[in-house]
Amino acid sequence: MKPYYKGMLAVHLEAGRVEVREAPIPPRPRGFALLRLIAAGICNTDLELQRGYYGFRGTPGHEFVAEVAEADSAALIGKRVVGEINLACGCCEWCRRGLGRHCPTRTVLGIVRHPGAFAEYLTLPEANLHVVPDAISTDTALFTEPLAAACEILDQVDIPADAPVAVLGDGKLGLLIAFALRAAGRIVHHYGKHPEKLAISGGDTFTEPPPAAAYDFVVDATGHPNGLRAAAAAARPRGTVILKSTLHGAVPVDTAPIIVNELTLVGSRCGRFEASLPLLAGGCVPAERLISARYPLSAAPEAFARAAEPGALKVVLTPR
Amino acid sequence: MKPYYKGMLAVHLEAGRVEVREAPIPPRPRGFALLRLIAAGICNTDLELQRGYYGFRGTPGHEFVAEVAEADSAALIGKRVVGEINLACGCCEWCRRGLGRHCPTRTVLGIVRHPGAFAEYLTLPEANLHVVPDAISTDTALFTEPLAAACEILDQVDIPADAPVAVLGDGKLGLLIAFALRAAGRIVHHYGKHPEKLAISGGDTFTEPPPAAAYDFVVDATGHPNGLRAAAAAARPRGTVILKSTLHGAVPVDTAPIIVNELTLVGSRCGRFEASLPLLAGGCVPAERLISARYPLSAAPEAFARAAEPGALKVVLTPR
Repeated sequence: MKPYYKGMLAVHLEAGRVEVREAPIPPRPRGFALLRLIAAGICNTDLELQRGYYGFRGTPGHEFVAEVAEADSAALIGKRVVGEINLACGCCEWCRRGLGRHCPTRTVLGIVRHPGAFAEYLTLPEANLHVVPDAISTDTALFTEPLAAACEILDQVDIPADAPVAVLGDGKLGLLIAFALRAAGRIVHHYGKHPEKLAISGGDTFTEPPPAAAYDFVVDATGHPNGLRAAAAAARPRGTVILKSTLHGAVPVDTAPIIVNELTLVGSRCGRFEASLPLLAGGCVPAERLISARYPLSAAPEAFARAAEPGALKVVLTPR
Repeated sequence: MKPYYKGMLAVHLEAGRVEVREAPIPPRPRGFALLRLIAAGICNTDLELQRGYYGFRGTPGHEFVAEVAEADSAALIGKRVVGEINLACGCCEWCRRGLGRHCPTRTVLGIVRHPGAFAEYLTLPEANLHVVPDAISTDTALFTEPLAAACEILDQVDIPADAPVAVLGDGKLGLLIAFALRAAGRIVHHYGKHPEKLAISGGDTFTEPPPAAAYDFVVDATGHPNGLRAAAAAARPRGTVILKSTLHGAVPVDTAPIIVNELTLVGSRCGRFEASLPLLAGGCVPAERLISARYPLSAAPEAFARAAEPGALKVVLTPR
């Protein structure tokens, strides 16, 4: 099934400006699939890219649902898919350990040297694709990647079922982390500033700040430079603080409480789709409630502006 | 055995000034021992206290060897002892877990609301004392507390015997960490700037900076605000950075590499004397080679100045 025309719309990000351009449909290397976009989500990382993170220039976008237009595997063609965002070499030590998302020569969809999903067509290695079960709506499947990032916490840190976890931040990622931890049977105390967002959390919620030295496990999903300090203050001695907020630039950190209280800080990034897809299929994660607005690709500048507004949750881009 | 007079010399630290004062010999509460100083060591923490850390005002000093002058237990009297520096309540959750050094109501010898060891006499609970075996010289026993802090790393982090550990910093603590890790059979790559200090390390030494993304375990013992950044840069993805440098004030930290590479940062402070005394008794840790200079208490201002000079290692204070 060939695309019907050779040009496409693609978002272009450069020096803080979001533009929509006509671009050629990307060529499909061997082992890759050509994907026709169904929907894509704007992530805080995309907003950070706009602010200069990684010196990014090109087409962003790494949360998507697409239809396979062309592929080596005939069985994939026409399928609705999501895709792992790290394009790894497949043969280094990290890849052999199943940690291709740390492959030193990786490119990353819409982030590092691989054009992203805010375009009518994108390419990814077939090995990166996961077919979306029919039971999962496209709106829900859009959250496969950020929910995998939320699930990554449990891949890295062993949190006992009886230890309450403080999740700081009621934005998209904070909500997905609360969903993921609760779905995995953990006790979540979700702290935020916005009652209307906390209402989506679906469990125990509290107004920031958390009490001092109260939790053995604290997740900073505030997306704010003060988040690490607040999370460290909420942790008990020998506690663990999980850092999920990717911020651009240096953050002032008072390391003395970290050392005096012997805290463990764990940086946490992307996760495995194998962890998030079953959660979405099981229906226990109401991810689609996070969608705040929808825009066509042609209105990407407005969509980015909307996503950056206070109170916005997930802003979705569709081909038209 | 009563002290021969009721007054004593004590160092007094206030607003950055080091003074030597006449002071009363401290009263001995029940369960406490009155200790007559034999020797004390100036630690970087003392220099940080001088710079304003904890808003400290009083008698500093927490590394010492002393003779027991008075005690409830007759068996202790006359013994040469070292002492754990945290005065814990003994009955809270932390104390019950053997982690009195995290007791929330603790005082800390010479650091938090308990007069320190830079005085002719000091007091500590008898439960904090460890009798120094005759085989350990006073010069060597002086390093029981800082070597325990070095050993704390292995109490917190499981470092496999075949994983090289990069130790950054060739000051006192960096050297003790290199000693402790090597004595525990770990492979240490010791990085520093001073060939004359690295010569004491007794194993593989290298000039800073370490190669990028090269180690699964990195210890920051630089005592420098840039140490955390340098240590994070030397760590491989999913690696562990152990923070041993207590610094005063906020340090600018770029959290992005910590999150992208999913590093684990572990704050690490005091340790158990049960770990360090056998190392010293075994003779495999040449701690006394770290002594740079000796001063009587009456010359404490000069001793503090010497300890703050570049290149100084351990400066020792003696009663006279």
